[in-house]
Amino acid sequence: MSVFDELIEYIRTDVNQNLKKIPIPNKPKYLYDPIRYSIYSEGKRFRPIIIHLCGKAKKVNPEVLMNISLAVELLHNFTLVHDDIMDNDFLRHGKKTIHEKWDSSTAILAGDGIYTMAQIVLNRLPEKTIEISRYFNNTTLEICEGQALDKEFENNQTITESMYLDMIDKKTGALLGASAVLPMIYNGESKETIQKFEKFGRCLGKGFQIHDDLLEITANTTIMGKSLGSDIIEGKQTMLVIKARKNFPDEWMKLLNNTNELRFVDNISSFFNDTGIIKETKLIANEFFKSCLELLNEIDDIEKKYLIQLVNLIKKRTY
Amino acid sequence: MSVFDELIEYIRTDVNQNLKKIPIPNKPKYLYDPIRYSIYSEGKRFRPIIIHLCGKAKKVNPEVLMNISLAVELLHNFTLVHDDIMDNDFLRHGKKTIHEKWDSSTAILAGDGIYTMAQIVLNRLPEKTIEISRYFNNTTLEICEGQALDKEFENNQTITESMYLDMIDKKTGALLGASAVLPMIYNGESKETIQKFEKFGRCLGKGFQIHDDLLEITANTTIMGKSLGSDIIEGKQTMLVIKARKNFPDEWMKLLNNTNELRFVDNISSFFNDTGIIKETKLIANEFFKSCLELLNEIDDIEKKYLIQLVNLIKKRTY
Repeated sequence: MSVFDELIEYIRTDVNQNLKKIPIPNKPKYLYDPIRYSIYSEGKRFRPIIIHLCGKAKKVNPEVLMNISLAVELLHNFTLVHDDIMDNDFLRHGKKTIHEKWDSSTAILAGDGIYTMAQIVLNRLPEKTIEISRYFNNTTLEICEGQALDKEFENNQTITESMYLDMIDKKTGALLGASAVLPMIYNGESKETIQKFEKFGRCLGKGFQIHDDLLEITANTTIMGKSLGSDIIEGKQTMLVIKARKNFPDEWMKLLNNTNELRFVDNISSFFNDTGIIKETKLIANEFFKSCLELLNEIDDIEKKYLIQLVNLIKKRTY
Repeated sequence: MSVFDELIEYIRTDVNQNLKKIPIPNKPKYLYDPIRYSIYSEGKRFRPIIIHLCGKAKKVNPEVLMNISLAVELLHNFTLVHDDIMDNDFLRHGKKTIHEKWDSSTAILAGDGIYTMAQIVLNRLPEKTIEISRYFNNTTLEICEGQALDKEFENNQTITESMYLDMIDKKTGALLGASAVLPMIYNGESKETIQKFEKFGRCLGKGFQIHDDLLEITANTTIMGKSLGSDIIEGKQTMLVIKARKNFPDEWMKLLNNTNELRFVDNISSFFNDTGIIKETKLIANEFFKSCLELLNEIDDIEKKYLIQLVNLIKKRTY
């Protein structure tokens, strides 16, 4: 294991342990059982990793980084719980989603509770609490906007690549941007530094999301812990779908008319491969990762080593 | 119109105007159309009225009171939007609920957005922002607990009056308590004063909720803007239902077996009247209102006139 790999493992373990230290009452079980189920599950903790590595590059107090990490991870969890209801997803991190294991009402309330806990955790910060809370909540509203666009785009055949990029910038980029920025706000960094970190995080977010769409097709359900192909049946827009519709309209339409076929997922997968769409999409994701590295070069006075490795970690992840 | 009535009307109009001044983007329409629909609707604005009258009694800056009012009213709105999904309610303030007019996904996201906007508005406060935000978010978690208990209690025949009172203290009392307390926190009042205002608000909340349960039975759908009797069919616990089950088990069971009957709502209504349950329940609500007035007498150095009239306003409301 490299020093970097050990560091990532350390952050993950530390975040998981600290998530378990957040006091959660036993009752009412209707509220707190699903909350525990959700936040103790096996997330990859990418956002806390970004927070820790960006913060480390500017020598931010590790306790503060953990505090921000917990709030951001809770916020992320809240959006997953609600998005899973809206998107009819029944698997998350290889486990049943809350609305599948319990029901929608339970999941709505659990999400509300988790988001509230995020605010409570954030308010524990010893300094710059208001500035951080402002950024945090503006980010949340942007994530809501991203989810709204995602829902608006469903089954809409006119969505273009640039509209899709705008949507994922809000839905995924905003929180990865916030993960890079919040430690800087705490540190009282200059506007310029904050903007550069925001750009870095948002760029990483877009690369991350496009890579995620690719993994949905190339990985299998067990590894991704999500139901493969379900997004396509739901009419979700991804870079792959948009390219398929634009460049191969007839073939794509024909494929979509056979969602009931047993081999539907395999057919889709082969199609994306054979047409070169996977390759093309990978290139786009890699462009974003390349921009991340370029942005890092524009930031002075930071130890870049781990941030470069972070970009590569996200670029090369297989699940 | 009395001076008090004019004051209440003024606060309501002012709150409504200020709610309309909160900047809400036009797009994405999926997010912001239902948000506008919800927060511009005809709420009674009781929480802002409590905030203004309690704050006025301690001479808190009116602009601050408006800021707190908007945040609390948005928080209240958010809970209504999500509760209406969980409780299958299709009418609110005489209009279709969001999940009925659009769908559940839209309503989940609109609620999330409204709660986020509450946080953003709260963060505009010029001072004591963290203390107020802490109290605000702890209150939200308590409201979630109250809603969880409400759901747990559904169709549970063992719920007692004291369990019910605990549930409504969280579900309704907590936010009325916060409405009385937040201006005091802003003003830097003593712990003792804060505790007294909290007790006052929570007491008012319990009276308010029991009175609300009564109105569901005694008022008609057009006036209440809610679907009468639906809560009983859903197996919701109210003071009336608990008394009916405890004191008239056989008659109550018989009534419940005829939910399909056209006259079901009338039958329930007559039953509560004839058995004296309405009278008994009114007495309990009035006990809470009496306690409110006693609590006011324990608070020194405040102008009590309007707060006494506030208690009577809530006690006597007919819709």
